[in-house]
Amino acid sequence: MTPEEFRTAAHELIDWVADHRARIPDLPVASSVAPGEIRAALPGRPPESPEPFEDVLADLDRIVVPGITQTQHPAFYGWFPSNASLSSLLGDIASGGLAGLGITWQSAPALTEVEQVTTDWLRQLAGLDDGWRGAIQDTASTGTLVAMLAARERAGEHSQESAGLQGVAQPLVAYTSPHAHSSVPKAVLLAGFGRDNLRFVDVDPVTYAMRPDALAAAMAEDVAAGKRPAVVVAAVGTTGTCAMDPVAAIVEVARTHDAWVHVDAAMAGSAMLLPEMRHLFDGVEGADSLAWNPHKWLGTILDCSLLYVRDVDHLIRCMSTTPSYLRSAVDDEVVQYKDWGIPLGRRFRALKLWFHLRLEGAEAIRARLRRDLDNARWLAEAIAAETDWRVLAPVDLQTVCVRHEPPGLDREALDRHTLAWADAVNAGGRAFVSPSVLDERWMVRISIGAEATERADVEALWALLREHVAASRVVPTAP
Amino acid sequence: MTPEEFRTAAHELIDWVADHRARIPDLPVASSVAPGEIRAALPGRPPESPEPFEDVLADLDRIVVPGITQTQHPAFYGWFPSNASLSSLLGDIASGGLAGLGITWQSAPALTEVEQVTTDWLRQLAGLDDGWRGAIQDTASTGTLVAMLAARERAGEHSQESAGLQGVAQPLVAYTSPHAHSSVPKAVLLAGFGRDNLRFVDVDPVTYAMRPDALAAAMAEDVAAGKRPAVVVAAVGTTGTCAMDPVAAIVEVARTHDAWVHVDAAMAGSAMLLPEMRHLFDGVEGADSLAWNPHKWLGTILDCSLLYVRDVDHLIRCMSTTPSYLRSAVDDEVVQYKDWGIPLGRRFRALKLWFHLRLEGAEAIRARLRRDLDNARWLAEAIAAETDWRVLAPVDLQTVCVRHEPPGLDREALDRHTLAWADAVNAGGRAFVSPSVLDERWMVRISIGAEATERADVEALWALLREHVAASRVVPTAP
Repeated sequence: MTPEEFRTAAHELIDWVADHRARIPDLPVASSVAPGEIRAALPGRPPESPEPFEDVLADLDRIVVPGITQTQHPAFYGWFPSNASLSSLLGDIASGGLAGLGITWQSAPALTEVEQVTTDWLRQLAGLDDGWRGAIQDTASTGTLVAMLAARERAGEHSQESAGLQGVAQPLVAYTSPHAHSSVPKAVLLAGFGRDNLRFVDVDPVTYAMRPDALAAAMAEDVAAGKRPAVVVAAVGTTGTCAMDPVAAIVEVARTHDAWVHVDAAMAGSAMLLPEMRHLFDGVEGADSLAWNPHKWLGTILDCSLLYVRDVDHLIRCMSTTPSYLRSAVDDEVVQYKDWGIPLGRRFRALKLWFHLRLEGAEAIRARLRRDLDNARWLAEAIAAETDWRVLAPVDLQTVCVRHEPPGLDREALDRHTLAWADAVNAGGRAFVSPSVLDERWMVRISIGAEATERADVEALWALLREHVAASRVVPTAP
Repeated sequence: MTPEEFRTAAHELIDWVADHRARIPDLPVASSVAPGEIRAALPGRPPESPEPFEDVLADLDRIVVPGITQTQHPAFYGWFPSNASLSSLLGDIASGGLAGLGITWQSAPALTEVEQVTTDWLRQLAGLDDGWRGAIQDTASTGTLVAMLAARERAGEHSQESAGLQGVAQPLVAYTSPHAHSSVPKAVLLAGFGRDNLRFVDVDPVTYAMRPDALAAAMAEDVAAGKRPAVVVAAVGTTGTCAMDPVAAIVEVARTHDAWVHVDAAMAGSAMLLPEMRHLFDGVEGADSLAWNPHKWLGTILDCSLLYVRDVDHLIRCMSTTPSYLRSAVDDEVVQYKDWGIPLGRRFRALKLWFHLRLEGAEAIRARLRRDLDNARWLAEAIAAETDWRVLAPVDLQTVCVRHEPPGLDREALDRHTLAWADAVNAGGRAFVSPSVLDERWMVRISIGAEATERADVEALWALLREHVAASRVVPTAP
């Protein structure tokens, strides 16, 4: 395709994107296609000859759009805020247009240095001291895996240079909250620790935050058994209820064993931008690594996850490879991000951050985050004030965990009731919430923070929930 | 930013991209900015208030473009072809516009199913049998790490469910070519095998391809020492010379030890599209996994790497996590790509492939690959016919390894001469080649395959090389 052909097609596509984004509030939030439906609409054999651009564009409307759950919808309250700001999309388009190849500093000095600058801007905005250095990863899953590998190599005294984990004298142990994101145990297992060496530390029954005394006890027990506490992952906040593990106390416990502390603040990290919320992250300076996803609440389009570390030299020692064809005269003067993570080739993702921050400005971003906190508090109060409704966990930030608990239901009936009204809300297409399990019972997570969600939307959600609960046929348990 | 503000800015940006792509042939190929130069041009503090779009756009020209080595330039012969076709860029823009969030099938059924279809289209185009299942990874570095983890778990009998690599009875060993890409040893080390358990197998001194007899001997030696051959990575082709490790013979050796075979065909895999080249991949059906990057020679914009596996159930067993908030009623009927790799959240990258293949058609892609093979053969013949020039390795595909060897130079002087003329070529800005080490001596890799590179460009390159060599002051070694 020539630049002129691209120009024509891309102008059409931009109009399509602008129109699509404008109509999102009128679309059902959750996709309702059946498994295999989209596959069946596509040819099984690859195209031999070029097809007209118009056909491809038409297929976006016909086939693709119905197959997308609309995370940019004002009534999207599922999983996590997954904002894809249009200002960051401009940066992403620029990245593709430039086609920068990030393999070494030399392959695209701008790609490296704009990343240095923008990750440092976010460090400053988050009130993190200048001992932190950041790099963009695709997701926090990957960032957490990188942190587990770095922790493994520190505790194992760089065993990868000898017999690997296969030669470690004392088994290394990892600790986290049972409420940590699923990517945390996954990263621990992929790093080779083994499930026997992964401890889920007790949490407080009211706040659902990790108990530092339980962490200390678990570590002491492992040490007594001849094992070596290697790493703790503090979830700030947790996936289920957005509980905030107490970082300062965790750091203090970890330090006595020289264990690595990784802070998973993938969603909640954006709250560090608000001085009045910064206390929730107290002690983070004592951690060794920190994952935070601007592609969630902050709004920089996926994928844009940050991993900050304090000891870059250690990280590089774990991740570095410099074959002859990648050597250059300036190696000692520049940052080589290939040695800060897993992939060699990297997209120019810093442009998304650069455009996002410059076109929005930090002030407007903070105002939006505060709006979401206010909305969450309003909703939590409204729910708590209503008969038979319960807010199940502290609302420190923007996640509200709720259950409607009409009298006369036993545990199983209550679970059926919860799933029934949540599924009905989602199937209706006018809002999307996430059913989730807390203390072995189903509840509903309402994760507020879509860029488009205003107070009126949250009020409409609350009306919708009550409507669905009223309509849902509660079958009381037989006496 | 509202959809209407986006519309206005994005139309401007599209014109900028089209203009930029059109002017690339007039830009210097390699960036020549100094370390820190771009950083110094940017404000050290984050923006509090929004800046006008025009300022950001102007900074692309002023600051960013000079800091990019132009991989889309017709005279780009460095590292690997790293094509970013404009048709695939359209798919990438659509992906951003849709803002699909790939965490489960339910979060974006279209994201999953278009990926199933397009990876299957490429499977068919590559002549791979229907026992292969593919998923998009960011890069082959990641794909290879996933393969090493899957291999580790097969050989270690799913040790991650017990004591991990820390509890494996027999040390697991990995094998590869010393000419494999740097991401291969990196993946082996990150997977926890340890450098002591990573064997570089001897290669043929003429073809630089792995010797299956040497592999068999290395494995036998390890077995005798009480170790367990777990995985072989066949490089097809290698990074240095594009040597093609003989997959069929490697598979045969590996099978006697039930070792996993991973084929790294990141760059060369695109040649599978050409029936006349398919024999170079003979035996690939016997392998367990295969990495191939459409974001290289094929031209689908970064990042778009494929990992095909034969035993998906095994892969899922290694990678799966299904917490309650990600459970859905259709889990058994659909593909959950989160369980095929490391990240939970995934972009809608299949759209890049979808647009690329539909807008270009397979026929035109094959014609372009054949053009590149012809150009490489032409160049190799021209070089081989010239006094004092040597082609150093077989030119099976599109990589030509050369050295100018004037008489009277000892080893060190020859290295200085090679680096001097290669650096002069690159500094001149009219072409970009990669100096690299082969048999402990510097040589120059010419990797043909930029989308824009025509025969006239390769002829111009050859003239330029001779020009630079003639101008370079050769200091003969003192007698």
